[in-house]
Amino acid sequence: MAELKNDRFLRALLREPVDITPVWMMRQAGRYLPEYRATRERAGSFMDLCMNPDLACEVTLQPLERYPLDAAILFSDILTVPDAMGLKLRFATGEGPIFDKPVRTAADVEALPIPDPEHELKYVMDAVRTIRKALDGSVPLIGFSGSPWTLATYMVEGGSSKEYGKVKGMMFDRPDLMHRLLDTTARAVTEYLNAQIAAGAQAVQIFDTWGGMLTPRDYREFSLRYMQQIVDGLTRESEGRKVPVILFTKGGGQWLEAMADTGVDALGLDWTTDLSEARRRVGNRVALQGNMDPTVLYASPQRIRAEVAAVLASYGKGEGHVFNLGHGIHQHIDPANAGAFIDAVHELSLAYHG
Amino acid sequence: MAELKNDRFLRALLREPVDITPVWMMRQAGRYLPEYRATRERAGSFMDLCMNPDLACEVTLQPLERYPLDAAILFSDILTVPDAMGLKLRFATGEGPIFDKPVRTAADVEALPIPDPEHELKYVMDAVRTIRKALDGSVPLIGFSGSPWTLATYMVEGGSSKEYGKVKGMMFDRPDLMHRLLDTTARAVTEYLNAQIAAGAQAVQIFDTWGGMLTPRDYREFSLRYMQQIVDGLTRESEGRKVPVILFTKGGGQWLEAMADTGVDALGLDWTTDLSEARRRVGNRVALQGNMDPTVLYASPQRIRAEVAAVLASYGKGEGHVFNLGHGIHQHIDPANAGAFIDAVHELSLAYHG
Repeated sequence: MAELKNDRFLRALLREPVDITPVWMMRQAGRYLPEYRATRERAGSFMDLCMNPDLACEVTLQPLERYPLDAAILFSDILTVPDAMGLKLRFATGEGPIFDKPVRTAADVEALPIPDPEHELKYVMDAVRTIRKALDGSVPLIGFSGSPWTLATYMVEGGSSKEYGKVKGMMFDRPDLMHRLLDTTARAVTEYLNAQIAAGAQAVQIFDTWGGMLTPRDYREFSLRYMQQIVDGLTRESEGRKVPVILFTKGGGQWLEAMADTGVDALGLDWTTDLSEARRRVGNRVALQGNMDPTVLYASPQRIRAEVAAVLASYGKGEGHVFNLGHGIHQHIDPANAGAFIDAVHELSLAYHG
Repeated sequence: MAELKNDRFLRALLREPVDITPVWMMRQAGRYLPEYRATRERAGSFMDLCMNPDLACEVTLQPLERYPLDAAILFSDILTVPDAMGLKLRFATGEGPIFDKPVRTAADVEALPIPDPEHELKYVMDAVRTIRKALDGSVPLIGFSGSPWTLATYMVEGGSSKEYGKVKGMMFDRPDLMHRLLDTTARAVTEYLNAQIAAGAQAVQIFDTWGGMLTPRDYREFSLRYMQQIVDGLTRESEGRKVPVILFTKGGGQWLEAMADTGVDALGLDWTTDLSEARRRVGNRVALQGNMDPTVLYASPQRIRAEVAAVLASYGKGEGHVFNLGHGIHQHIDPANAGAFIDAVHELSLAYHG
């Protein structure tokens, strides 16, 4: 493998000194980029794009050709794992993801296999290998997965949900079944992430998109516990370097201390949490990634720059900050505004280091 | 006016001793009740129902005929105020609320009138008077309004939104305009709530449904500040009794101290906040209302009872707790489960008082 030329993202996650604050954007390879939309058109369906390693590599690299980003993130979907478990994922226009075979009964849960990442999910591992080669050591590659709880919401509901009646119904009335489902999913995710690391992912992020819909008690029992199980089973070193692990629970700002206790290297924060307060709460235990409101990118470049300055000031001087949006970049953002954002992070963060 | 027979809701909001914990449910007059659906059918559109004081009274009382609730809440919609400002509200099937004349420009903001509550919103005040008479002192009547920020999201977006691009775009790029819009709306809401109190509302709740979508800084500047303005202008005593004010920011669990500083009597909490922790944080300054996860009502009566016990234990002994769901009751809930919930609160809370 080519030597890594820009490692400030990995260094910041491990709370080591950096020259400027590293930055990437959740969903940076996505619909706001015209070149992404063109590749997506060529690919066919969204899943066709995910399943084609060459095209997945192409869209992964697109934002890096436009912007001086400090990390690439594997282009894929969080629902590849349940799809590989046999739930038959498809994306209906305007409806989002749908599983034709949702998990509803004890028999459904018992029947769930743990996919072999180099077999049913080989297309993801091939994408990781293809991207690493194409990156040629320019920046590190982030691998990722959905959290067991987040995956379970789609698996039980059969798609997206507003009320989570079915999945929470199972959680409240059949906690034994829910624990079994989450344990199986956690084991599948652990193998999936370790395979990504073996294939070349240099950091991994666990996306707990829906953990924030739980009570504090249920979050600990049904979401955090299974992320802990994954963290305990992850390969933490590869190619002679540490592989940092980032945990992102959207809406998890009230539970940062418990998240830090899992032993991950960094926590992702959405924009509802004050960064200086978060830093005070987690102390030196973890790095923090975030957390500009992604809607700021609808504003003018001057306003974006002012907000970047405010977020940098909120974190303050010293190591342990990776700049990011507090959630994925929206599809209607002007790519020029994303560029203004990234440049502002690099320019304005110089004063906070060295 | 008839003497109030059951005042434990008002007493709990003022942190006075009660015999058992009072309980009501946000959206208790709603679609989960077959009798509501029947009245709604008769009324015509949703707004026809809101605008007919007799039918609004009928649906307000329906849950009280089924359950021993400790408060009634005016049946209305949070968008009546912007509708009365001339934005022309309608509800499109499957799409939610739509304003045909959204607020987008400086001229739109300048043109906004402050409605006279006894003229453009007389149908609401008539409903309050009709309901008070029909309640005949059985339980207190809660009046309500949306918060200025929450109303502004609909006014600028022209309806519901997922990304809040337009309203946050205005907030970021034209903060002067946004402040003007929020100030006008806050003045309209103050007059609207004071008119509800004059008409007979015995407590009022401000619903800040979308304040939780803001950063901590923007929350203080664009949502909390205007709720403070309202609180400062509210009639706090009527009919020789205090009129308690409840502030509910969904997703506001990280900002409870600042919310308590407004001088309201109680804070509404969603289910993502730990009640014992919240009580510790706000001390003796305010009562707390909440906060069972509304999806628990999909579970069995035994499970509902166990969750009620957990929420009561979390708050602990002593005054200052009004039991509620952490958000509105969902439309697909079995009314029998709502009954099991309310009975459990009354039965199990006896041990926490006296």
